[in-house]
Amino acid sequence: MTLFMDVHTIEGGVAEADVAGAHQADLATQSAHGVNYIRYWVDEQAGKIFCLVEAPDADAANTVHREAHGLVADEIYPVHEHS
Amino acid sequence: MTLFMDVHTIEGGVAEADVAGAHQADLATQSAHGVNYIRYWVDEQAGKIFCLVEAPDADAANTVHREAHGLVADEIYPVHEHS
Repeated sequence: MTLFMDVHTIEGGVAEADVAGAHQADLATQSAHGVNYIRYWVDEQAGKIFCLVEAPDADAANTVHREAHGLVADEIYPVHEHS
Repeated sequence: MTLFMDVHTIEGGVAEADVAGAHQADLATQSAHGVNYIRYWVDEQAGKIFCLVEAPDADAANTVHREAHGLVADEIYPVHEHS
């Protein structure tokens, strides 16, 4: 599995409640694709969403978004996490 | 305090060891500004770095980067975290 950070940019902003609903749909869809959406961060005003996700590859992560709610990320990066 | 996600985009990529060094410099600089760099994610090839940081405001977070190593983020967003 690889860790990815994806980035959604939604013109005009986004509501946290809508993102929460989309995330629940991801959680209900992901196991069939071996994907695990771990955590996400939202800036409502800027319409920015960052999703931290483990997946076999970027396509699998995008497929879950597409099947769950259609909001595929604009960018996705394989990352290493450090603190 | 506010939680921020910042985004660095470095043309030509970046080495994890360099980012680790910069992060250590942040940790040594941040307390004077009431900032806490929590975690970061790196895509070496794309030259992308995402930093999760608590700060009084975005300027304080940027000031720590500027003073510590000069690599100020290209983007910074106040975010709410969910899982």
